[in-house]
Amino acid sequence: MKFCSQCGSHVELKIPAGDNRERYVCPSCGFIHYQNPLIVTGCVAEWEGKILLCRRAIEPRKGFWTVPAGFMENGETASAGAARETWEEALATVTTTTPLAIVDVVHAKQVHIFYRGVMDNGDFGAGAESLETQLMDEADIPWSEIAFPSVDYALRRYLEDRAAGVENMYETEIKWRRPK
Amino acid sequence: MKFCSQCGSHVELKIPAGDNRERYVCPSCGFIHYQNPLIVTGCVAEWEGKILLCRRAIEPRKGFWTVPAGFMENGETASAGAARETWEEALATVTTTTPLAIVDVVHAKQVHIFYRGVMDNGDFGAGAESLETQLMDEADIPWSEIAFPSVDYALRRYLEDRAAGVENMYETEIKWRRPK
Repeated sequence: MKFCSQCGSHVELKIPAGDNRERYVCPSCGFIHYQNPLIVTGCVAEWEGKILLCRRAIEPRKGFWTVPAGFMENGETASAGAARETWEEALATVTTTTPLAIVDVVHAKQVHIFYRGVMDNGDFGAGAESLETQLMDEADIPWSEIAFPSVDYALRRYLEDRAAGVENMYETEIKWRRPK
Repeated sequence: MKFCSQCGSHVELKIPAGDNRERYVCPSCGFIHYQNPLIVTGCVAEWEGKILLCRRAIEPRKGFWTVPAGFMENGETASAGAARETWEEALATVTTTTPLAIVDVVHAKQVHIFYRGVMDNGDFGAGAESLETQLMDEADIPWSEIAFPSVDYALRRYLEDRAAGVENMYETEIKWRRPK
């Protein structure tokens, strides 16, 4: 950030009065530009026992597999965002049921929220951000080709719970960054 | 938002290529300024059966009671943010235990995440954003003077679970806006 979005002046990095950390502050109009973590919302969607997975058409992790997930938008709930992402990435309509996991990804300045979901029917396809989409049996999930550790975590907890006949809510922190 | 934070040019509101909603886009450098929901993180902190509540010294809802909560910062987990807010607002050190609730507050463009917490000792005080802080018995909680519906929701679920000897994770959406 170099310029104030309110008045166009150059911003300065300083600790505002009454605050305890550096912010971008406009010396002209006084506006404080806070920067905060973003929410990624997604869902593990199931149809007839199979799990909906998408192979990413975009970076990061192009070519790797993920559940439908993306940045939550203003004007929607987190679960509605998960359903929207499922439509955009996998052309599937899903009804989210219960929250599955909250995953802190501190180095990325993100919190990932995952829901359980049931597809409304067996229809799906590849959205603009997906190379392909598949409904996979648990045994066919390509664990070594999962795009992000948060997705790996959510998928494993989902499958463990399904096997046990429970629906818990999980929380964890991803403490490692993938080597570049 | 009027100016590009990257180059200082006037931004335009338009739907970027490949997108499906309006964003502030810079016609000069091409930067897309996404605007997304913020996370508020807080905790219901307990000490010897009493609940830690703060009376707000700032707007909105100055003079009303809340559990410690505030905007999550970059560089911390959501639970660490809840503990930080507990320190800043109530001068109390707390160890968060389990996630309690995710509350969508769509009209405010916020998601509120609440944790259960146990205070490390009985010390507390009024931080800069609090008029006063109290450890309250359940029977003394001023329900008609709770600052926000998300806090009311989290407190009630906490107390119900405590009475039942369970620790569930709850999710809801706040659909109403307080009259001005």
